Amino acid sequence: MSRVPPDGTDRPARGRVGYDAAALLQVAVEVFRVRGYDGSSISELARAAGISKAAIYHHFSGKEEILRAAVTRALDRLFLVLEERGAIDGPVGDRVAHVVRRTTAVLIEELPYVTVLLRVRGNTATERWAIGKRREFDRRVAAMVSEAAIAGELRQDLDPHLATRLIFGMVNSLIEWYRPTPGESPQAFSDVVAELAMGGLRRGRSVL
Amino acid sequence: MSRVPPDGTDRPARGRVGYDAAALLQVAVEVFRVRGYDGSSISELARAAGISKAAIYHHFSGKEEILRAAVTRALDRLFLVLEERGAIDGPVGDRVAHVVRRTTAVLIEELPYVTVLLRVRGNTATERWAIGKRREFDRRVAAMVSEAAIAGELRQDLDPHLATRLIFGMVNSLIEWYRPTPGESPQAFSDVVAELAMGGLRRGRSVL
Repeated sequence: MSRVPPDGTDRPARGRVGYDAAALLQVAVEVFRVRGYDGSSISELARAAGISKAAIYHHFSGKEEILRAAVTRALDRLFLVLEERGAIDGPVGDRVAHVVRRTTAVLIEELPYVTVLLRVRGNTATERWAIGKRREFDRRVAAMVSEAAIAGELRQDLDPHLATRLIFGMVNSLIEWYRPTPGESPQAFSDVVAELAMGGLRRGRSVL
Repeated sequence: MSRVPPDGTDRPARGRVGYDAAALLQVAVEVFRVRGYDGSSISELARAAGISKAAIYHHFSGKEEILRAAVTRALDRLFLVLEERGAIDGPVGDRVAHVVRRTTAVLIEELPYVTVLLRVRGNTATERWAIGKRREFDRRVAAMVSEAAIAGELRQDLDPHLATRLIFGMVNSLIEWYRPTPGESPQAFSDVVAELAMGGLRRGRSVL
């Protein structure tokens, strides 16, 4: 288990999980990814982390709180994208492109955490909360796509909610097959995804 | 349980599952979708179908043969798309568009069966066989995208395998959220998906 917390500091900032909790979280999301959240027990998490169940309970009240910490990390990063300058300033079509590109980058950087987020099933209160936050994110992007279509910057013959779902269907599929390749920058990869997505969204004559 | 077999005939064609087996399959894919293949037992399939376990074993040797019948149905439909005139004749860029549009249509028409196919994990011989067939399908489409890029009909700055994965990431995401809406034709819906996908693939200047 890595002793370096994912954010590269050993100072537990206010409202963030502390040093050991962050390292434990890193192990937990990997176990969730392989066995599924429903199929993972605190015993298995303890075994995978090489610590006792009591040590886990020192940091988290239980499995659901671990899930909450994991999806919170993913959601915080995703929602921050919507606050970035590129998502706020400039022509709205460019803002959509920014969000698609940066969301892809976050997905790659936080792959195990976003994977847990995208796989929640809705069986617990935390899962339903996470699904609600995902929907809120989708709604905000769909509103941006809609605004861009009205402004004539994106094609107007596609339903904005449908287009948003399809674009994020493409982006989110990364969790199933993306593997980092040496020498390839996440930045360049995000550009490719944004190119492909925006090519379909941009205004223009039918391409079929 | 519907007594009408999904293909609308009661004649078990050679190499296809018969009347009762088809109806049973329809129930099984729904159980697999809700509970997962690993989480479904023959007892549960029998309960959901309202028949005895012995009646299931009359048609299938076990759960794995049911899975094989389900994914075979999906794979047969998908591979047939590659044999259609639109996938064989004409400019290769148009052939790619045809495959994207028709694959989307098949996915909608055979939603529960394709859902089972796309969710196989690789734990059994049948699952690994299905994954192999999916890869073969992807390779054939990627080869077509590659050919179209070389011909200058699709953009040349995207890796064909990566572009194919992203496009099918978009198409395949339908299994997670598509619900038929009254009055909307699967045909029109497939057109939208193909428009969005091909807009990104078609040759042209950068859209970012």
